[in-house]
Amino acid sequence: MASIKPSVPKGTRDFSPVEMVKRNYIFDTIKSVFRKYGYQQIETPTMEKLETLTGKYGEEGDKLIFKILNTGDFVTDGKIDSSNFNPDYKKLTPLISGKALRYDLTVPFARYVVQHQNEITFPFKRFQVQPVWRADRPQRGRYREFYQCDADVVGSDSLLNEAEFVLIYDEALSKLGLKDFTIKINNRKILSGIAELINRGDNIIDLTVAIDKLDKIGLDGVTKELLERGFTEADIEKIKPVILLQGTNAEKLQSLREALAESAAGLKGCDEIETVFTYLQSCPLQTATLELDITLARGLNYYTGAIFEVKTNEAAMGSIGGGGRYDDLTGMFGLKGLTGVGISFGADRIYDVLEELNLFPTTANQTTKVLICNFDKEGETYGLPLLQQLRRQNVNAELYPAGAKIKKQLDYANNKNIPYTVVIGGDEIASGLLTFKDMSSGVQEKLTVDEIVERMVR
Amino acid sequence: MASIKPSVPKGTRDFSPVEMVKRNYIFDTIKSVFRKYGYQQIETPTMEKLETLTGKYGEEGDKLIFKILNTGDFVTDGKIDSSNFNPDYKKLTPLISGKALRYDLTVPFARYVVQHQNEITFPFKRFQVQPVWRADRPQRGRYREFYQCDADVVGSDSLLNEAEFVLIYDEALSKLGLKDFTIKINNRKILSGIAELINRGDNIIDLTVAIDKLDKIGLDGVTKELLERGFTEADIEKIKPVILLQGTNAEKLQSLREALAESAAGLKGCDEIETVFTYLQSCPLQTATLELDITLARGLNYYTGAIFEVKTNEAAMGSIGGGGRYDDLTGMFGLKGLTGVGISFGADRIYDVLEELNLFPTTANQTTKVLICNFDKEGETYGLPLLQQLRRQNVNAELYPAGAKIKKQLDYANNKNIPYTVVIGGDEIASGLLTFKDMSSGVQEKLTVDEIVERMVR
Repeated sequence: MASIKPSVPKGTRDFSPVEMVKRNYIFDTIKSVFRKYGYQQIETPTMEKLETLTGKYGEEGDKLIFKILNTGDFVTDGKIDSSNFNPDYKKLTPLISGKALRYDLTVPFARYVVQHQNEITFPFKRFQVQPVWRADRPQRGRYREFYQCDADVVGSDSLLNEAEFVLIYDEALSKLGLKDFTIKINNRKILSGIAELINRGDNIIDLTVAIDKLDKIGLDGVTKELLERGFTEADIEKIKPVILLQGTNAEKLQSLREALAESAAGLKGCDEIETVFTYLQSCPLQTATLELDITLARGLNYYTGAIFEVKTNEAAMGSIGGGGRYDDLTGMFGLKGLTGVGISFGADRIYDVLEELNLFPTTANQTTKVLICNFDKEGETYGLPLLQQLRRQNVNAELYPAGAKIKKQLDYANNKNIPYTVVIGGDEIASGLLTFKDMSSGVQEKLTVDEIVERMVR
Repeated sequence: MASIKPSVPKGTRDFSPVEMVKRNYIFDTIKSVFRKYGYQQIETPTMEKLETLTGKYGEEGDKLIFKILNTGDFVTDGKIDSSNFNPDYKKLTPLISGKALRYDLTVPFARYVVQHQNEITFPFKRFQVQPVWRADRPQRGRYREFYQCDADVVGSDSLLNEAEFVLIYDEALSKLGLKDFTIKINNRKILSGIAELINRGDNIIDLTVAIDKLDKIGLDGVTKELLERGFTEADIEKIKPVILLQGTNAEKLQSLREALAESAAGLKGCDEIETVFTYLQSCPLQTATLELDITLARGLNYYTGAIFEVKTNEAAMGSIGGGGRYDDLTGMFGLKGLTGVGISFGADRIYDVLEELNLFPTTANQTTKVLICNFDKEGETYGLPLLQQLRRQNVNAELYPAGAKIKKQLDYANNKNIPYTVVIGGDEIASGLLTFKDMSSGVQEKLTVDEIVERMVR
């Protein structure tokens, strides 16, 4: 028998009842907004075939995929024996493993779309909230198992989708109680335009990696980095006005149009951004500040149009959401020409922000509302019909399942955050007036069964 | 690039939007009942340490656990090379794998209770709805990934818990629309009493395995099997009245008390069953038939008191739920003496039953309620404020994101089961009266924007 306390694998977590209520609150809020905008939920298996995942996340990503050992005699099935045993684990892996844990929700979604293309009505607006697994080195805020919370639409190039994602961010985060956050938007074509401006289309990644750091290292730092990366003083002089773009979104857009006048791609990017802004004029945001930020790049190789990122201004925290448009999601599985755009909510970070700002609601319908305390068989028998009546009225209720000391029963209520208790002792049974206690105020009253039910239902 | 259609691993499933709505309906219903009875949700990681799972499910079970290959260079880390390579996969496995996928929810729950014993308030009433993985041969209705839906209470020996589980089954399955189902109850101590009756306490498993088949093979079959298993004619004669128990639950209990008069365990079992029945007299069942079935055994080695099983009488289907009391759940992790009782819902089977009986509700708040169709930029611009108004009133609404042919837009609505559409063409814009269509009746009306919003909200 184990004498050491058991534990969970490194980088994974148990979620306690209190944490689950809070997590469900976040997920339910986001899901309800996804549904309001016409997104439909799907789920894909935890395991995918190794061939589905391999090569989709780059060499580094492939290393971080959790592989599943084939079941049964994987040595014989893999035709491995002492004579041909190859100690290179990369060679050995495909012989003994054919499945792996989902690494993100995007690749399984692409696989889903291709596999079910004949059953799907396009445009296909789907959301998916499931865990993913990555063998990253665990650290504060980074786990090996964590939930992703994604919405994507494929098969529609309308920029209304982009506008609606801005609205979804605004509505969901407003609902969660955030009062000051920024949705940053950029467009890959604007970044291409900037690179074209200096005839460095091939070096767009070097360029964007450098200007992405403007916030942190300032213009001098960016200049230094660009020089190191092979850009000339003349290049830098030419793009400086673009990097230092100032003013309202409309002013920035106007300056960009002037600066990128020579670039067809750049102007296309400006047009797209402007169309999104126009949509949003008829659908004003509740809380969010929308900011055109041309330093925003995020997984640049992936995105082909809009790029989004969301940051809260109330807490020190990285981005709490991001996404963008990609023109060839399903090409990796042989289905070409399907455009898509999607966003993701960073649920773990949102959890930390709500915790820090004390924004989790104190009342939740996910916990017990009233505990009936009793001291003996007689009290229990007296309490059962009350328990039944409460539950019949859809009140979450419990009867303490033993005639324990009152302190123990009230501790139980406090530890479970049960807001009300009813005490049934000999006096209460004799008078028919039960002791009803509001656990947060400490106020006690003598009430009949009917009065208690009435109080709990309203 | 892949030219073959991608697919999911054997025995796993994608869930489409339509399936997800139905699955959520089942899970949400069951969860709401768990919560009403004071059960709190927890989640545990998908992966557990291999040592947590190994040896808990018997030798056969161990083989069916999906193991996860260690990340990084598992060959070097496992100190394996060509000279010491052992082709016995059972010897190799622990060298290259230290984690595995959850095989059920019970062992992870036991691990959770022991690990967090100092944070938990007992009695601890928890529920858990998560997938589990088993490398079983897939067949109709049996998957390698499936959800379990469990509620357990640990740290309370009160039989009120048993009674409440009967109520939970009754309420949840009634809510799901089942009209005729049986909750069978038995008690391990009664089975012990029957074995004691013929001084065969050591052969209780042989005995129960045989009488468990009474339904299928009849008394002659059971007699034959008992003889084969080494019981005597005299044994069989002595237990025959017990096996053939008839009448109401009260009559059966009375007959059992007489037959088991010599067995302390047997009488204890009768007392426990009677206590549960007494509780249920003050809390009458809505729909279920409660049946004392002394042939019910289910994983006998595990249970020490009550045993439950639920069957629908409306469809040919195995059990749709089961559970029981176990006196030493956490002993496997070194925490002794903690008694528990729990139940499980068979979600996949319940899904099939509801499908067969056509019991899924046609309206669900998980889908879009109204689609706004349009033909051009003008229609889209006209539709946007309507879309906003609907969403502000919490109506799930979509604007078709392109000026496509009307047939395509209506097909989209039909395929997504969207019950209402609004068409905005030139005439509609000119008159301010939009074409509002009930998609199931086909009835069309001309309504103003405000009338449409009013209609959709109520």
